[in-house]
Amino acid sequence: MRPEPLSRVSLKDYDTRYSGEIDRKVAKALENQLEERMAELQEMLYAQGEHSLLIVLQAMDAGGKDSTIKKVFDCVNPQGVHVYSFKVPTEEERDHDFLWRIHQRVPRKGYIGIFNRSHYEDVLVVRVNDLVPEDVWRKRYEQINQFEKLLTESGTRILKFYLHISKDEQRERFQERLDRPDKNWKFSKGDLDVRKQWDDYMRAYEDVLTYCNTDYAPWHIVPADRKWYRNFVVTKTIVEALESMSLAYPAPEEGLDKIEIPD
Amino acid sequence: MRPEPLSRVSLKDYDTRYSGEIDRKVAKALENQLEERMAELQEMLYAQGEHSLLIVLQAMDAGGKDSTIKKVFDCVNPQGVHVYSFKVPTEEERDHDFLWRIHQRVPRKGYIGIFNRSHYEDVLVVRVNDLVPEDVWRKRYEQINQFEKLLTESGTRILKFYLHISKDEQRERFQERLDRPDKNWKFSKGDLDVRKQWDDYMRAYEDVLTYCNTDYAPWHIVPADRKWYRNFVVTKTIVEALESMSLAYPAPEEGLDKIEIPD
Repeated sequence: MRPEPLSRVSLKDYDTRYSGEIDRKVAKALENQLEERMAELQEMLYAQGEHSLLIVLQAMDAGGKDSTIKKVFDCVNPQGVHVYSFKVPTEEERDHDFLWRIHQRVPRKGYIGIFNRSHYEDVLVVRVNDLVPEDVWRKRYEQINQFEKLLTESGTRILKFYLHISKDEQRERFQERLDRPDKNWKFSKGDLDVRKQWDDYMRAYEDVLTYCNTDYAPWHIVPADRKWYRNFVVTKTIVEALESMSLAYPAPEEGLDKIEIPD
Repeated sequence: MRPEPLSRVSLKDYDTRYSGEIDRKVAKALENQLEERMAELQEMLYAQGEHSLLIVLQAMDAGGKDSTIKKVFDCVNPQGVHVYSFKVPTEEERDHDFLWRIHQRVPRKGYIGIFNRSHYEDVLVVRVNDLVPEDVWRKRYEQINQFEKLLTESGTRILKFYLHISKDEQRERFQERLDRPDKNWKFSKGDLDVRKQWDDYMRAYEDVLTYCNTDYAPWHIVPADRKWYRNFVVTKTIVEALESMSLAYPAPEEGLDKIEIPD
């Protein structure tokens, strides 16, 4: 589900219920295998300490950002993974350029960093609600591309996922949050105001997916109405990226074979 | 394995190979159950957003800090867990008091923070190698107690684990790191110099376990020669602490039952 770099994206062309040619059970079995492989590759990434992987997750409310993180990364060693959830910026953060707080959270060498929301909110919620003038947010697409280029050129692989759900699917998930006491906390009345802006958000996402879909930091549009397919696609994409990163355990110090451990 | 608060600890009294009255298979089965419960409690901690849990792991090299993190936390959602590995301080960090860099990494409300090494290195490696004068490090036990008291009084539960291995067990684990190519990266020749200081470290640990074993931030001495027993004890201790923290899903916003989701 990866659009051609910099080609015009229209989200209507992407079916939110798509689930490939694959059977659910087969996908789950494959996903388990892929997760084991991910754990191995993550250990090598950590041991080698030369590269890092940055995963950006964006979606509408109830799109599945939290549960993707929970399901896809339940096998990896938490020592090598940092999840960062970006909230409404603090006053100090707003007193800097919009990438200032983001830059502080990019993963160090050896680590996987996961952004639950990201700098893309600065051309999504900020744009839809007119929080800054258009001439400010318009410049951000190119500023983001240059920032992501810097990271890529400095050893960070970037994968960006837009979890694509339908408006009907959002309604069902909101309803579940209302109906289940252990899910109530995930619902806020303000979520309904955002839902009313659905079409504005779709337009803002289409621009993100068009202008910031570079060959070095591609967007993946993940059909996300079916959670099992979403998890499978995200897991598979991450493992393929890690496989392509020339990971290896570092060369041992010289002379390890001659060492005797003293009493 | 929790010494009486502020009683004199002699590590010779603690058997590193102890494994309770429990069978290995039974312990593993119980641990799996406990890990599931930990995942539930962690979600509640996160949802509630009122408390946090700080876990401090200390041990000699090859004592099992990394693998404890990997095994004990392989079920929890990485979104609510931050692991921080403290290394040799940077120049900027050394230009501040020793708790400055630590304070920045304590878990925020709702989170579990795991320190792989910690402020205790400032009365361990620093003391053993005379990196600061004795009148400086002597004051640190009380400074640490006051710091941990502040955290506790501010909603953070603190659990501290000393993973206790024998010098023979360390030799076997070093040998495995030398013999296995995929483990070579964990070995550094400098580890042997630290091994030579074993007795000095034991004395330094005994003082830590004596002076900083408060009722609000207790040390747990974990027999760690047997990895399965170590994992079981650490998991069980964490789950018991979480169970005692009055965790609950937060009360829903009022009027959720009357909400209709708009188209």
